[in-house]
Amino acid sequence: MPNSFGKLFQITTWGESHGPAVGVVIDGCPPRLPLDAAEIQHELDRRRPGQSALVTPRKEEDKVEILAGLFEGRTTGAPLSLLVRNTDARPGAYDEMREKFRPSHADFAYQAKYGFRDHRGGGRSSARETIGRVAAGAIAKKILSFGSTAQHGTPLEVRAWVASVQDIAMPADALKKFPTLAEVEANAIRCPHAATAEKMIACIEAVRAQGDSVGGVIECRIRGVPPGLGEPVFDRLEADLAKAMLSLPATKGFEIGSGFAGTLLRGSEHNDAFEAHGGKVRTATNRSGGTQGGISNGEEIVFRVAFKPTATIMRSQKTVDVLGHATELTGRGRHDPCVLPRAVPIVEAMAALVLVDHWMRHAAQNQVFKF
Amino acid sequence: MPNSFGKLFQITTWGESHGPAVGVVIDGCPPRLPLDAAEIQHELDRRRPGQSALVTPRKEEDKVEILAGLFEGRTTGAPLSLLVRNTDARPGAYDEMREKFRPSHADFAYQAKYGFRDHRGGGRSSARETIGRVAAGAIAKKILSFGSTAQHGTPLEVRAWVASVQDIAMPADALKKFPTLAEVEANAIRCPHAATAEKMIACIEAVRAQGDSVGGVIECRIRGVPPGLGEPVFDRLEADLAKAMLSLPATKGFEIGSGFAGTLLRGSEHNDAFEAHGGKVRTATNRSGGTQGGISNGEEIVFRVAFKPTATIMRSQKTVDVLGHATELTGRGRHDPCVLPRAVPIVEAMAALVLVDHWMRHAAQNQVFKF
Amino acid sequence: MPNSFGKLFQITTWGESHGPAVGVVIDGCPPRLPLDAAEIQHELDRRRPGQSALVTPRKEEDKVEILAGLFEGRTTGAPLSLLVRNTDARPGAYDEMREKFRPSHADFAYQAKYGFRDHRGGGRSSARETIGRVAAGAIAKKILSFGSTAQHGTPLEVRAWVASVQDIAMPADALKKFPTLAEVEANAIRCPHAATAEKMIACIEAVRAQGDSVGGVIECRIRGVPPGLGEPVFDRLEADLAKAMLSLPATKGFEIGSGFAGTLLRGSEHNDAFEAHGGKVRTATNRSGGTQGGISNGEEIVFRVAFKPTATIMRSQKTVDVLGHATELTGRGRHDPCVLPRAVPIVEAMAALVLVDHWMRHAAQNQVFKF
Amino acid sequence: MPNSFGKLFQITTWGESHGPAVGVVIDGCPPRLPLDAAEIQHELDRRRPGQSALVTPRKEEDKVEILAGLFEGRTTGAPLSLLVRNTDARPGAYDEMREKFRPSHADFAYQAKYGFRDHRGGGRSSARETIGRVAAGAIAKKILSFGSTAQHGTPLEVRAWVASVQDIAMPADALKKFPTLAEVEANAIRCPHAATAEKMIACIEAVRAQGDSVGGVIECRIRGVPPGLGEPVFDRLEADLAKAMLSLPATKGFEIGSGFAGTLLRGSEHNDAFEAHGGKVRTATNRSGGTQGGISNGEEIVFRVAFKPTATIMRSQKTVDVLGHATELTGRGRHDPCVLPRAVPIVEAMAALVLVDHWMRHAAQNQVFKF
Repeated sequence: MPNSFGKLFQITTWGESHGPAVGVVIDGCPPRLPLDAAEIQHELDRRRPGQSALVTPRKEEDKVEILAGLFEGRTTGAPLSLLVRNTDARPGAYDEMREKFRPSHADFAYQAKYGFRDHRGGGRSSARETIGRVAAGAIAKKILSFGSTAQHGTPLEVRAWVASVQDIAMPADALKKFPTLAEVEANAIRCPHAATAEKMIACIEAVRAQGDSVGGVIECRIRGVPPGLGEPVFDRLEADLAKAMLSLPATKGFEIGSGFAGTLLRGSEHNDAFEAHGGKVRTATNRSGGTQGGISNGEEIVFRVAFKPTATIMRSQKTVDVLGHATELTGRGRHDPCVLPRAVPIVEAMAALVLVDHWMRHAAQNQVFKF
Repeated sequence: MPNSFGKLFQITTWGESHGPAVGVVIDGCPPRLPLDAAEIQHELDRRRPGQSALVTPRKEEDKVEILAGLFEGRTTGAPLSLLVRNTDARPGAYDEMREKFRPSHADFAYQAKYGFRDHRGGGRSSARETIGRVAAGAIAKKILSFGSTAQHGTPLEVRAWVASVQDIAMPADALKKFPTLAEVEANAIRCPHAATAEKMIACIEAVRAQGDSVGGVIECRIRGVPPGLGEPVFDRLEADLAKAMLSLPATKGFEIGSGFAGTLLRGSEHNDAFEAHGGKVRTATNRSGGTQGGISNGEEIVFRVAFKPTATIMRSQKTVDVLGHATELTGRGRHDPCVLPRAVPIVEAMAALVLVDHWMRHAAQNQVFKF
Repeated sequence: MPNSFGKLFQITTWGESHGPAVGVVIDGCPPRLPLDAAEIQHELDRRRPGQSALVTPRKEEDKVEILAGLFEGRTTGAPLSLLVRNTDARPGAYDEMREKFRPSHADFAYQAKYGFRDHRGGGRSSARETIGRVAAGAIAKKILSFGSTAQHGTPLEVRAWVASVQDIAMPADALKKFPTLAEVEANAIRCPHAATAEKMIACIEAVRAQGDSVGGVIECRIRGVPPGLGEPVFDRLEADLAKAMLSLPATKGFEIGSGFAGTLLRGSEHNDAFEAHGGKVRTATNRSGGTQGGISNGEEIVFRVAFKPTATIMRSQKTVDVLGHATELTGRGRHDPCVLPRAVPIVEAMAALVLVDHWMRHAAQNQVFKF
Repeated sequence: MPNSFGKLFQITTWGESHGPAVGVVIDGCPPRLPLDAAEIQHELDRRRPGQSALVTPRKEEDKVEILAGLFEGRTTGAPLSLLVRNTDARPGAYDEMREKFRPSHADFAYQAKYGFRDHRGGGRSSARETIGRVAAGAIAKKILSFGSTAQHGTPLEVRAWVASVQDIAMPADALKKFPTLAEVEANAIRCPHAATAEKMIACIEAVRAQGDSVGGVIECRIRGVPPGLGEPVFDRLEADLAKAMLSLPATKGFEIGSGFAGTLLRGSEHNDAFEAHGGKVRTATNRSGGTQGGISNGEEIVFRVAFKPTATIMRSQKTVDVLGHATELTGRGRHDPCVLPRAVPIVEAMAALVLVDHWMRHAAQNQVFKF
């Protein structure tokens, strides 16, 4: 249960960083969806190590195997089971962590919780856990794109990118329009504003040379969402998005629409006036960020996620060992000086998982029976 | 299900703003807890209308009735059913909303979702829905306080307050220590820094006089949390707190520990070094905000929640009616020009609900069987 | 959670036999369903005490109040909250049970579980708990009837009756056709075979005169179920029906289709041959009982539920008190010598709840997205 | 979700009969449990094909791989992922089933539900799906045995056996005591009464020679269950056991304690009088079958499960093809003429899963906080 996400389109991830494999089971997937491994692989390649000079050099192909739920190129409605072997595990690199807690990592918290831990590469808290999320997200994206096109004539698109690295941020007016995937993928940092991307890359390279790390903010927009998805109380769309994002390693904050900056406005400045557009109800502005009262209103969903600087740094840090003695520890292993470029497809995956689940929930309650 | 929160300590709220009553069912409450209605009433009084000049004058005593689950002053382990009658409902005040969508309210989204809505006072999206949360939260707080004292010798305390209203914020160094409840309750805005509180109150009064509204930020700290609560993947403690907070009306953002500001630091500046303190592992700083890898580390849990300015304002606004025609609407009814002072006990309640649920989950997996 | 049933159409019951009220919250109900209290009351009247000479004389009108979720005669999609006051509680009649465990009642098990119990009338294990189920079931039945008619042209009907009391059973060939509600309601025992009903009634009256009690078997058939409802593995339709029935007080067994008697046949005798009937696939026989592989096949669903004799008898019985001393106890209070006539609407309610939940689940996965 | 079972100790099975593998993810397993693959393999060997002349000759070693959740011989608290490759898949043997629905199999129901199906060997409805259940059940049994011994001084034991095959049943008084595992495993049919076992085996051999099949009843007893496990309303222990058993392929009935036969007794004959036994409350008889009001009372849990005759028979049967035309079909492939001997470990596994889940739930609500 703690390793599952979603109510109707439910994923369960498993596997440790330095165990034999990681994987995901997807339960509730609609039947008859055309699917092949290459589509999933495409998204996994966006998050895999070694894809550019900016990220960890761990050599992993992250080749996905589909073990169940697919028959003659279509989903059957049975659970999909996807598996990725760990081929470049080097558990020996973590011997020191058996005895010492890495600062701002989960080591100590795990020890307190379980009284026992797989110390190799963070075990379950490794970023490798997100492979299953990205794989499942690839399927969720396809369902949303197909489903939306079939029902509303336009595809639902989920697009994330790096909006800032440390204090290097895209200019406020840089985004005239919803960016294309190509624009995001045009550079190694996944920022669709070329000039900013260049500065971000230079920053990360400098920081890495110093054995240090940086964080930043990812922005995500979703267009083509039909009005009516979400729930009015606990399972608000923004609540589930917030949970999805804060469930990712290294995240420290989430905001939707106007976010924290919106607290500086008055109601008369903040409210989104409704307008009639050829039979459709639209809003003149989008400070709400695409949801009102927890339910989509048909505008773009817009949110931002804060990622802290990577906890592993190649410098000596003060810490404590499992016996409670003060000691020091210097980061080793192969790590990202900045997690943001690889986090972009993960943010998209989680957003897609939330949306497909709410789509199915909405339909079950509100569209099945016609009264 | 969409109206339930929590996995082991589960609450289900029901009721509309202008129906006969609102209530909550609490399932999974431990048995034998001493409890009386007055303890719950105390918390309800902190969120009820009419408690000060800053909030809505709707006249509601919000008197709680306990209909089940209590026997001879103790919980039985059966579901607690709590009910509060709506005594000052004035559905007629909302006749105009039957036809017109209020800007930045849930009216249009509800119509899109359900094809039908109780237009009176927002129906289910009214702040009156939070009565059940606060009532359940009062019980959760008591469990945490008793449970923590019994198991660890110190009570677990959840304290929230208003950190900023519009651009009026407490000075960064104002909080030398964990504030007492009395300090928070010392003024109508629930800001424990008297000079700031005064400015906030003046701001709200001015804004109300103009028929406008303001938002702000609530900060919440929790101390006495044992290390080990939370889950490593989807149900991270911060993920469940984020969901809890974004499930509240008018919220636009959540951040834990260093939050969005933490993205400006380098890893070497951001990491919390571990220190040995008389057999206990502590951190020198608390940028993590009390959780690492989704699990509490024994430090104070610290988070902030952004509340947008109240959507209802006493000014004419452009909108659309249910037939899709442009129209105008002027706010009526009895509303808060700023939701923050009444939101303080709600934030505390939701935080307490998350913690008691995780405490039970942690124990079930990790403490029941001793291997 | 332990007091909730259903995944998408979820009910949560609360209340004790001798507390102020009992009730139910129904979450996930489709919006726009025309509904009034009288429809629910009609079903409650079928299970209420005092309706005939065969059942407990406790004087309860069981008048239902709808507190939420209904607006202008239609459901809104928000949780329905239904409440029934206990008006003839006589907690004093149970003083002896504070100290003594009633044989074959839940008293001792509750004490072991909770270390504390509301001894008055069984508290939560009272048959009054089923009021909420019947109320929710009335709504589920209406949804099924309307939904099935709209989608398939024929109403889905759930019909239960008393098939046997002790060794008095309907003749094997008594049921030529699906019985009408009027046939079932034609006598106080709710057996649609008049001659058998007469004998059953005589048996119960004789047993009551002796201060004793009897049990029996309820049969339930459901027609108009579209093929395709259910799940292939854990949430098989028959598995959820079995759980629903064994969750009722006093039940000891469940069988579907051929049931236990089916174990006496060979495969060649037991298999249901498929036949083509004007474009529809039907089976020549129905030993499967309407489901195959956990999923409805369009045939009548047929199952039977065993109810033990009422545990409360007006005779002295050996037992133990809370201090572990041997003692005796003679039943008091107002009890049914045979629970079966009042259990008929409860069985129907639970079956309807299972079906509406599976209908919504089926649609969410298999009908929302068209691939 | 439809492929998951359990609330706190949750298993999710995946895989098809003729796909590359089947498996299970176990979430919520307590940490630090000593575990190796051989313990799981031992249980898998009890259910695997080809173990005796009575069962299907499909050649499968069913070799289990543990892919996650285990570190240095102990569980970590992370999800366990177990995988078994299908090595003797012969999908070609099922070509005919692509077009024809096998009588009393799930083929037609699947087609109706999903509009698409993996016709090879029943796909997901194959008995191979139960491999994951048995593997998870092996772990559950170990937890129960260790946990019970540590907490109560006696191991909890789950023992199932074949009580009848067709009309060949163990004599009513055959079981003087709780049978040992060795007694059950002493013959190929898994009936601890040697004389009856011999007749059963002869019956199955005769039936197979005729290309036919038989069913029967499995009995299961569980001893060492502490009083207090279960829930009073929907999640009664017997309700969850009933669901668990009816979720198994080929099951048609479940009864606990006196079961259907108990409906023939009067209350005065059926009630289990309480007796004081050296400080322990026990019952003189056990018609309740170990639970009262849904909660264990410390007596042996006793239940029986009806299995229909195997649907696949080696004879020609009338059926319909996917176009709705009448046709005939003769069973092929490698099948069990009687599923009961292989179902014994599956019944034990499901019972163990229910108990470990309820144990954890009970502890979370009732033992964590001491009031």
